[in-house]
Amino acid sequence: MNRGKPTITPLHALTPGQTGDFFALLKERTRGETREAKPYFTCRFGDVRRTVTCMIWFDTPWFALCENDWQEGACYKIRARYQEHERYGAQIELQNIRKATEADRADGFDPAQIVESSRFSADVMFDQLLSSVREEIKNEPLRELVLLLLNRHALQLKELPASEGRYYPFRGGWLEHVVSLSRTSLMLADHYLAQFPDLKPPLNRDLILGGTVLHGIGRVLEFSADVASFQPTVQGRLVGHLLLGRDMIRDAARELGNVPPDVVQLLEHLVLSYLAIPEWGSPRLPMIPEAILLHHAVDLDAKMEMYARCLSRDTNPGPFTVRDPMLGKALLKQRNV
Amino acid sequence: MNRGKPTITPLHALTPGQTGDFFALLKERTRGETREAKPYFTCRFGDVRRTVTCMIWFDTPWFALCENDWQEGACYKIRARYQEHERYGAQIELQNIRKATEADRADGFDPAQIVESSRFSADVMFDQLLSSVREEIKNEPLRELVLLLLNRHALQLKELPASEGRYYPFRGGWLEHVVSLSRTSLMLADHYLAQFPDLKPPLNRDLILGGTVLHGIGRVLEFSADVASFQPTVQGRLVGHLLLGRDMIRDAARELGNVPPDVVQLLEHLVLSYLAIPEWGSPRLPMIPEAILLHHAVDLDAKMEMYARCLSRDTNPGPFTVRDPMLGKALLKQRNV
Amino acid sequence: MNRGKPTITPLHALTPGQTGDFFALLKERTRGETREAKPYFTCRFGDVRRTVTCMIWFDTPWFALCENDWQEGACYKIRARYQEHERYGAQIELQNIRKATEADRADGFDPAQIVESSRFSADVMFDQLLSSVREEIKNEPLRELVLLLLNRHALQLKELPASEGRYYPFRGGWLEHVVSLSRTSLMLADHYLAQFPDLKPPLNRDLILGGTVLHGIGRVLEFSADVASFQPTVQGRLVGHLLLGRDMIRDAARELGNVPPDVVQLLEHLVLSYLAIPEWGSPRLPMIPEAILLHHAVDLDAKMEMYARCLSRDTNPGPFTVRDPMLGKALLKQRNV
Amino acid sequence: MNRGKPTITPLHALTPGQTGDFFALLKERTRGETREAKPYFTCRFGDVRRTVTCMIWFDTPWFALCENDWQEGACYKIRARYQEHERYGAQIELQNIRKATEADRADGFDPAQIVESSRFSADVMFDQLLSSVREEIKNEPLRELVLLLLNRHALQLKELPASEGRYYPFRGGWLEHVVSLSRTSLMLADHYLAQFPDLKPPLNRDLILGGTVLHGIGRVLEFSADVASFQPTVQGRLVGHLLLGRDMIRDAARELGNVPPDVVQLLEHLVLSYLAIPEWGSPRLPMIPEAILLHHAVDLDAKMEMYARCLSRDTNPGPFTVRDPMLGKALLKQRNV
Amino acid sequence: MNRGKPTITPLHALTPGQTGDFFALLKERTRGETREAKPYFTCRFGDVRRTVTCMIWFDTPWFALCENDWQEGACYKIRARYQEHERYGAQIELQNIRKATEADRADGFDPAQIVESSRFSADVMFDQLLSSVREEIKNEPLRELVLLLLNRHALQLKELPASEGRYYPFRGGWLEHVVSLSRTSLMLADHYLAQFPDLKPPLNRDLILGGTVLHGIGRVLEFSADVASFQPTVQGRLVGHLLLGRDMIRDAARELGNVPPDVVQLLEHLVLSYLAIPEWGSPRLPMIPEAILLHHAVDLDAKMEMYARCLSRDTNPGPFTVRDPMLGKALLKQRNV
Amino acid sequence: MNRGKPTITPLHALTPGQTGDFFALLKERTRGETREAKPYFTCRFGDVRRTVTCMIWFDTPWFALCENDWQEGACYKIRARYQEHERYGAQIELQNIRKATEADRADGFDPAQIVESSRFSADVMFDQLLSSVREEIKNEPLRELVLLLLNRHALQLKELPASEGRYYPFRGGWLEHVVSLSRTSLMLADHYLAQFPDLKPPLNRDLILGGTVLHGIGRVLEFSADVASFQPTVQGRLVGHLLLGRDMIRDAARELGNVPPDVVQLLEHLVLSYLAIPEWGSPRLPMIPEAILLHHAVDLDAKMEMYARCLSRDTNPGPFTVRDPMLGKALLKQRNV
Repeated sequence: MNRGKPTITPLHALTPGQTGDFFALLKERTRGETREAKPYFTCRFGDVRRTVTCMIWFDTPWFALCENDWQEGACYKIRARYQEHERYGAQIELQNIRKATEADRADGFDPAQIVESSRFSADVMFDQLLSSVREEIKNEPLRELVLLLLNRHALQLKELPASEGRYYPFRGGWLEHVVSLSRTSLMLADHYLAQFPDLKPPLNRDLILGGTVLHGIGRVLEFSADVASFQPTVQGRLVGHLLLGRDMIRDAARELGNVPPDVVQLLEHLVLSYLAIPEWGSPRLPMIPEAILLHHAVDLDAKMEMYARCLSRDTNPGPFTVRDPMLGKALLKQRNV
Repeated sequence: MNRGKPTITPLHALTPGQTGDFFALLKERTRGETREAKPYFTCRFGDVRRTVTCMIWFDTPWFALCENDWQEGACYKIRARYQEHERYGAQIELQNIRKATEADRADGFDPAQIVESSRFSADVMFDQLLSSVREEIKNEPLRELVLLLLNRHALQLKELPASEGRYYPFRGGWLEHVVSLSRTSLMLADHYLAQFPDLKPPLNRDLILGGTVLHGIGRVLEFSADVASFQPTVQGRLVGHLLLGRDMIRDAARELGNVPPDVVQLLEHLVLSYLAIPEWGSPRLPMIPEAILLHHAVDLDAKMEMYARCLSRDTNPGPFTVRDPMLGKALLKQRNV
Repeated sequence: MNRGKPTITPLHALTPGQTGDFFALLKERTRGETREAKPYFTCRFGDVRRTVTCMIWFDTPWFALCENDWQEGACYKIRARYQEHERYGAQIELQNIRKATEADRADGFDPAQIVESSRFSADVMFDQLLSSVREEIKNEPLRELVLLLLNRHALQLKELPASEGRYYPFRGGWLEHVVSLSRTSLMLADHYLAQFPDLKPPLNRDLILGGTVLHGIGRVLEFSADVASFQPTVQGRLVGHLLLGRDMIRDAARELGNVPPDVVQLLEHLVLSYLAIPEWGSPRLPMIPEAILLHHAVDLDAKMEMYARCLSRDTNPGPFTVRDPMLGKALLKQRNV
Repeated sequence: MNRGKPTITPLHALTPGQTGDFFALLKERTRGETREAKPYFTCRFGDVRRTVTCMIWFDTPWFALCENDWQEGACYKIRARYQEHERYGAQIELQNIRKATEADRADGFDPAQIVESSRFSADVMFDQLLSSVREEIKNEPLRELVLLLLNRHALQLKELPASEGRYYPFRGGWLEHVVSLSRTSLMLADHYLAQFPDLKPPLNRDLILGGTVLHGIGRVLEFSADVASFQPTVQGRLVGHLLLGRDMIRDAARELGNVPPDVVQLLEHLVLSYLAIPEWGSPRLPMIPEAILLHHAVDLDAKMEMYARCLSRDTNPGPFTVRDPMLGKALLKQRNV
Repeated sequence: MNRGKPTITPLHALTPGQTGDFFALLKERTRGETREAKPYFTCRFGDVRRTVTCMIWFDTPWFALCENDWQEGACYKIRARYQEHERYGAQIELQNIRKATEADRADGFDPAQIVESSRFSADVMFDQLLSSVREEIKNEPLRELVLLLLNRHALQLKELPASEGRYYPFRGGWLEHVVSLSRTSLMLADHYLAQFPDLKPPLNRDLILGGTVLHGIGRVLEFSADVASFQPTVQGRLVGHLLLGRDMIRDAARELGNVPPDVVQLLEHLVLSYLAIPEWGSPRLPMIPEAILLHHAVDLDAKMEMYARCLSRDTNPGPFTVRDPMLGKALLKQRNV
Repeated sequence: MNRGKPTITPLHALTPGQTGDFFALLKERTRGETREAKPYFTCRFGDVRRTVTCMIWFDTPWFALCENDWQEGACYKIRARYQEHERYGAQIELQNIRKATEADRADGFDPAQIVESSRFSADVMFDQLLSSVREEIKNEPLRELVLLLLNRHALQLKELPASEGRYYPFRGGWLEHVVSLSRTSLMLADHYLAQFPDLKPPLNRDLILGGTVLHGIGRVLEFSADVASFQPTVQGRLVGHLLLGRDMIRDAARELGNVPPDVVQLLEHLVLSYLAIPEWGSPRLPMIPEAILLHHAVDLDAKMEMYARCLSRDTNPGPFTVRDPMLGKALLKQRNV
């Protein structure tokens, strides 16, 4: 019998008045001031199915911890009493709290239960991506470069969202996006290789797949490395993920030593230009056909996910969804065909 | 022996001083005025390999014809003397001229020798398109609608460019563009059908192919119907090809009578929204996923052709092409990989 | 004595605690979820002078009706108890509800008492418009075309607003707008006919009045046909009122058979270009002087109504109104001259 | 017999080789440099029907005059020999030149023969404008203010164009534009006074006419005062005609002393806001209904003139004019209705 | 003993339930309507450290005063009872109120205790500015012009903010901004005088300092003259501070009579062009180097204050501030270097 | 006597018909085709005072050299016969040509005689810059970093223009720009250090100077390294000088090993954000006050040079310069003050 180790009850399973141990994500931490000018924090913790408020007052032991240590986006192991307040809604009163660690997985800590995640297994997707790179990239040094970066950052790549709140904005989203578009970009590459056979040099299929896989690799440095935490880092904001991704490619190429400079240069150009237009954040215009192909593959894949998510979640009565703030429009929902 | 019927010598094969019969395109007709305020026209006729100037002075018999009848973009059968003037370049002096007709094909009139054309046979491409529609569109009334419009306008669809000077801007360009992207849009449709299986209703593959084939069908009414002539019509300018294409679909659906109204409505919406953004000329935003897929398929196909054409024609010394006015940038030309 | 038929008491005349029968507009229907994840609707019903909240809980008989049948913008006959809740404000408890019908007019159902309406009688305005068309449009087929469309859609044209929330956004607004600007556009047409007599062809006065009357005819299909309901239809959003209006003109012209194609084409062009600029939603640029005249007449009439409404409703202290969100600015209110 | 006074032969009537006296406008003066780095000027003189080149070489007596005194846009009395050079076209060799003066009118100097002018007599238009102001503006101090400015600058107002090359860009254009729109703005004022009778204060008809007449009064200071010369002045460029016009109104109001400050303030606001939108050069947004009415009246009148001029001058073959650079589009020219 | 004169207790020092006399700023006055359609006002009064709500109901003696006389931005002497309501927060019940006057300073009325103010003494800053003008502007009439305007409006210039809510948006802000940038603009002037010695005429140092001091002088007329009140005036909105400042310069120059017209004209141009770009509200583009220098000096000084204020006030946890709505971005806060 | 070594006669000193040896810059090389479809090049060689045309025909020995080896922007030692053709202007006939080398300086090759150069000695400016860095940057590792990059690229930094054709677009322009603004940015840093003493951390003066010196260091890689040749490199176009400059800083910091990461990160941010606005090409927004200061210092310095150059070169008659295409406006030229 496991004495002293209280059972874990998921936050969403607690009943009003019940005290329990659970893992939860710190979704929001906002500082406020009372009328007496005393600071406090309004925190919101949650798992996939329930979000609760937790007030941290100035004169409690949690205040200093909250102010100095807690991070939005991090997961915590919490002991607390759950209540449903008529006016203020679902709340918890803290009794204990510490950051969740990898070791907690043994006790049932599963980020997938806490934050929204991809429908697909991250491990399976990662293996699919590795296979695809191994089989499809014929240029050996380029293949090694891509594999080096994937393997080195495997843990984080399995967790990252594809973007902050725009497309595939959930755990495993980076991987789901890249696996999907590695297929579409290869299909398009093969089609246009056949369609424009006279291009000199011909469309570089290896480069297209390499750029597809690595175009968003900078997210690794843009977001902090904590489990389930996708907070932007200082360099993420000061430099941006495009440039950080290019740095990673350059550094890996130096490390390997045998990647042809031309390949590295064009790979860098893909990363810098796939957003296509300065107004969309692209530092350079696409000057090679591979870059324009990558742009459309990426943008379409992002949009399809946004359309699918908007359509599947909307509960608005009537034939149209509410206006989706990211898409900038309402979508048609009621269709017979 | 074919008496009275002079042999045809292609314009580009005439030597200075030689008089010959040939077919040529009227590429440009510009009105001017002499110092004495007498009007004249500077015309430019050409075939695929040579372009010549032809001055039409006020006091010649050709003036009235030129002013009232000749049309830029039309083909003419011409008898003229060819000259190379030191200062004014290649010129012809007219001796006879009349519009080329279908009957002239018997005498060797071949628009493909006169205006730039697709690398592929229009007949072959058209058959490919018909096959694709027949095999892939499962919805019978929709299939009939698409086939009706293709067959009715077959002659012109085999001639039309895909656009005025932007992408696939040559004879047969419409067909080359549509055949190419009917493949890519089906590939993408199949991929996203598998990627988002929970979408309700699922991505409509028939609709995507139908929209792909018909998105530019309005070019038939936008450009005049003469052989090899791609001059915009009055309605082409007053109304625009998007709306004209939608009219054609609506009229054909009425004619058939059995196309479900929902299918027609969504097909119309594809035609009205595939340009995606009002600034790019789109009257409506894409409100269904099929529309955003079509947008990216069309735009990528157009851009790939523009990149390929720019790269294959540029003769600029150095590693970059000259700035392409349509693409708005120079492309990288000298690559080893 | 009218037994069984309860007297109608207007919603705004009910006193707290009173139960009564009345007609009201469903202004808003928003879906929510309780903490227990049970869905409910917050509805807001109102007449011209009072708006009340009506909660529709999941476990009541009204829920299914509300979810499936009720439509924002439709009028209902309601039996309910009126209350003024200290915290939640004015509310009703439903006892009975059904859609209002034309037949209810016999019992005093008067949309004008329920939704904001034009200051002018719709019937009078409609007659004025018919007279104006009959007297001023000299081209007989064009006159017939305009009259056909007006008469066919008379019922709805007397109800429609001129726009969704921007200008003349009330019952009868379409008619008030069109009657007003049919006068200004004729005045301007006569002035510029005299000012530029050498124009060939001269400014087409018939076309200007025809375009004025029909430029917004597509609103008939953009909004649903229920009494007092101005909800956009599916085709209203997928296609837009400009293109729907052009369809109506084309179909009516086919039906009549004798309208000269040139007249129809220019009328279509007026409808497609009166918004003048793509950024303002115009699919085509105005290519004839009649179109630019129509643009200014329409835009000025809309703006004058917006200025007048903003100035007459504002209750902000000080010399300026609050910033009008539609006009994008505050107006000067306190003036002596 | 008029000895010593040579007859005037209009420039356009001179035959090659003939020497004559004539009046002409200096349309252009461009500095160049010979291969030996010696400066020269290429001048172009003209009357309504002919424009000639006149080279001014460094080592001729005319060079210093040309460099220091001659002004584009000024009229000159010239004695010169006319020639038609095969390569360089129509030219003159100067024998004498001085600026034309008012006194030259006695010898037949008529700017209307030299620069493009309004179809209407400036004197007649000016009288029409005075009458309109006298009859229609009921507020006496405002009427006096308007009349003061008109009368004080009568000479120049009869000459000025309405704009530099955009609308009514010819001698007398200012007056033609203002007379035309003083009619339309009054018609519109009367219509909207009736349409929105509840506006408080009612639409100010006097203010509308006053603003109409004076909205472009600053052109008087924007362009230099020479006969037929419309060169921008230093203050015209440094300050702009809108602000200069407002200065003139303020100064005239001070001079009169009895114009109510509110009237002056609103009149100023009309001048500052009639362009409506900052991107179109408007320093302020229209905050009173009179301003938005004036905006549309002015913009429509300008556009109608531009359409009429484009349509009447175009000689392009085909159904459309060439693209008008000011209107930013081609217009439909071939119409039967 | 001071009988009848109650002691002043600052608003922020009152305890719940206490009645006291104090001075406070009317920060906000919003009109509302009760459910019974009776109007009321929600006012907010405050000093530097506390803000309270004050409800003014329709049937109280204060209503008429509030509606007609009170002005946002004005200071009042108030007698009231202070309370802290659990739900509605800090409130006062009025017992007496009148506008604060200059005479109240004797009783301790000190706007600096009521509204946010510059860190520096307005009197000291004003003297620094006068000294700088006296010593640095060598052109005597220009110097007199600048001093005349400074001295004439000294009282208000010591109170004004530099802008409405953007940069230096507090009492004394105008002066702090101008004193700061009078130093930077002179430094830059001296540098570029040395850097580009061949400029003809050389950079005009007097003009730069004059323009620096007077570029925002129009704020005097843009904001109302009450103590501590920065409400925009009617002319402030109808005309704008740039043009009002230019008027003040022109009028002062007329008054003095000896300022060279060229100097006045260039000074006017500086005022009209220092915002540099039409989109930023500049009526003219900078056409002299002094104007582009002034633009950068002013813009940098404004931005540095905005950065400093944002950084010093932010209390957001984490390395970045919250997004500053005026700057349009978050700033980096946690830095070691 | 120097037998065998012909004297050098500057190109601009040759007289028609004379054959001479000289150094010249290849300013332009354009490929053309004769009527017979034979390729040729039109080259333009020049020194500071004269530019000549040189035709390179297909069948001459120079053709292959020209096609394969010659580079625009490179200097050549040439023997040629100079002629002034009546129709085609100044021309040369090549007799010998080879690229100029450093060794040619012994024979009088002086790029300053051939391409436009800074008024100041590059060596003197470079020493000034080194002194400034040594004295003013107190942070030793940062100082070493800056000095390392300056010294390593000294040769090229003394030659580079500051930009391609916009500001300081001449030999030595990079240095002149950086020396000038290293002074202004330090002055501004000192001023704002005193103005905002409470900033935490205080404005970093070392960082400002470091960022000032290195913000454009990427030009070294953007332009090719040949003497006097400022042709963009492949990486210059594919990556851009901002990112290349950041790479140089990162690589130098790695090399030194002791530069604090925070310092490197902020220095990188300065390079990435000094253009301030994405539309102006800035990949990141300025998130620290040092970046906004640097932005204004750089932009003002660039603009002052553009104004000074425009004003000193313009020869347009009248009070204004011609419109400067880079500044987008005409400047006021005739000023008395």
